[in-house]
Amino acid sequence: MSNNQPTASLVIIGNEILSGRTEDKHLKYLADQLTSIGIKLKEVIVIPDIEEKIIEYINKFRVQYNYVLTTGGIGPTHDDVTTSAVARAFKVKLERNKQAVRMLEARYKERNTKYHQDALKMADIPQNAQLILNPISGAPGFIIENVCVLAGIPSVMQAMFQYLKDHYLVHGSTIFNRTITIYKGESHVSSILQKVQNAFPILEVGSYPFIQDKKWCTQVVISGYDQANTQNAVKFLISSMEQHSIKFHEESK
Amino acid sequence: MSNNQPTASLVIIGNEILSGRTEDKHLKYLADQLTSIGIKLKEVIVIPDIEEKIIEYINKFRVQYNYVLTTGGIGPTHDDVTTSAVARAFKVKLERNKQAVRMLEARYKERNTKYHQDALKMADIPQNAQLILNPISGAPGFIIENVCVLAGIPSVMQAMFQYLKDHYLVHGSTIFNRTITIYKGESHVSSILQKVQNAFPILEVGSYPFIQDKKWCTQVVISGYDQANTQNAVKFLISSMEQHSIKFHEESK
Repeated sequence: MSNNQPTASLVIIGNEILSGRTEDKHLKYLADQLTSIGIKLKEVIVIPDIEEKIIEYINKFRVQYNYVLTTGGIGPTHDDVTTSAVARAFKVKLERNKQAVRMLEARYKERNTKYHQDALKMADIPQNAQLILNPISGAPGFIIENVCVLAGIPSVMQAMFQYLKDHYLVHGSTIFNRTITIYKGESHVSSILQKVQNAFPILEVGSYPFIQDKKWCTQVVISGYDQANTQNAVKFLISSMEQHSIKFHEESK
Repeated sequence: MSNNQPTASLVIIGNEILSGRTEDKHLKYLADQLTSIGIKLKEVIVIPDIEEKIIEYINKFRVQYNYVLTTGGIGPTHDDVTTSAVARAFKVKLERNKQAVRMLEARYKERNTKYHQDALKMADIPQNAQLILNPISGAPGFIIENVCVLAGIPSVMQAMFQYLKDHYLVHGSTIFNRTITIYKGESHVSSILQKVQNAFPILEVGSYPFIQDKKWCTQVVISGYDQANTQNAVKFLISSMEQHSIKFHEESK
C-alpha cells in the first residue's frame, strides 16, 4: 500500500526507555505526524546508548527506507553518544560547526545564563551535515544524507520535527481510512474480512478486537489511497454484514 | 553491567501502532516488569504484520538474547500472521493443539457464547510449543525454545506475561538505583559525570536533563549490582558537587 508514500524508520536511543525509568513519548507522536503527511513509518527500534548498536541500525535502515529519524543522545554528557555514532556510521569526522556555536551562544545570551565550555560538545556535528533548528534550547539536531538526528527531550524533539516537516521531508499521498465497528467477536467475521481483503488486495484491512459491555467486538479499519476504492470495500463489507444479520456501526467520515 | 542478568528483546507487531491509530502499551509495561525481575531489556522493535519482517527479527534476536517476547498478531483474522511467522522462523509446522482447543471450548462454555469454527485458528500452534495460559479470553500464547508469543490486547498480554514471570522466566540479579537531582544544566556537570563513570566503569551513570522553574536541571541515575559500590559512586558524585558548590538533592532510597 506504500507505493505513493515515502517510507521512514525510527531509532529511539536511550537506556532509560529500556529500563522503564522513562516512558517513551516519541513513537506515538512521530507515528501520528508522519501518517498525517503521507509518510509510511515502517519500523521502529529502541536501543541503548551504545555506539555499535546505533551504527548497526542507522546503516541498516538508511538503505532500506527514504528516511531514518533518531531521537536521544545528542546532549553534552558522557552517555550522549548518538552524534559520534552517526559520524562513524557515515565514516565522516565530527567538526565544531560554527553555525551551531552561534546558535548556542545566542541562546545563552538570550537567557542571560553562564556559558559552560562543555556545552560546545553539542556544536560538534558530522562534516557536511545540515542543522535542524531547536527553538527550545538552542542546541541543534542535524541531517546527514537521509538520516535526521533529533533530541530526546519530547518538547525539543517535537520542535525539531516540525522544522523537518516544513523544510526537509517530502510529503506523500493522503490515506483514506474508514472505520466500521462490528458487534461480534473477530472469529465470527474473520472469513468475511478475508473476502474483503481478497477482493481489494491493494487496500489494508485491519481488524482490532475490543470488549464492550463484556462482549467481544471488532473494529475494522479499511485504508487506501483511492477514496472510491476504499468506499467500495466498505460497501462490500457492510452488505456482507447485512447478509449475515450482524450488527455494525459505520463511523462518520 | 548485564553479566548477572538474563537478557531479553521485544518484538511489537502491529500496523496500527506504526500508523499512530493505537498507542503502544507494551513497551513501558514490559520494561518495568522485566527490570523488576532482573532481566535486562536490550532491544525493542516495532514492525508491521508482515511475516517476513517477523521472521527476520525473531531469528536475529533469538540467537542474541536469552529471551524474545512478541506481542500482537495471534488472533483469528487474516491480518494475524504472527503464529504462522514464528512456525516458519523455526521451520516447524502448525498443528491443531488439543490443549488449546480445550481452553477455547471451556472459555466459550463458561461464557455461554456461541462457538465459531474460525476461532479454532487460535488453537493452531507450532509443533512442540508450550502453551501460555490466557485467563482473560481463553486463546493461549505459546513458548517455542526461547521465544514467547503474547497477545496484542494489553490486558491479555499482561496476564500472559504474569504467567511467564511465574512459570518460565529465570529471574536475574537486582539492580540498585540511586537518583541525584542537580540544579544545573548538563554541560555544567558533564566533566564531573565523566569522572564518576571513569572511576566506576562497571556502573551505569545516566544523565537526564529537565526544566524546572524555567531552569535546566540534571537528573543523574547511578545503577549497579553491588549496593556498596553504587553508594560509593554516589558519595564521589556528591563530594564533587560540594567541591564545586553546585546544589543537588539526593532522593531517599
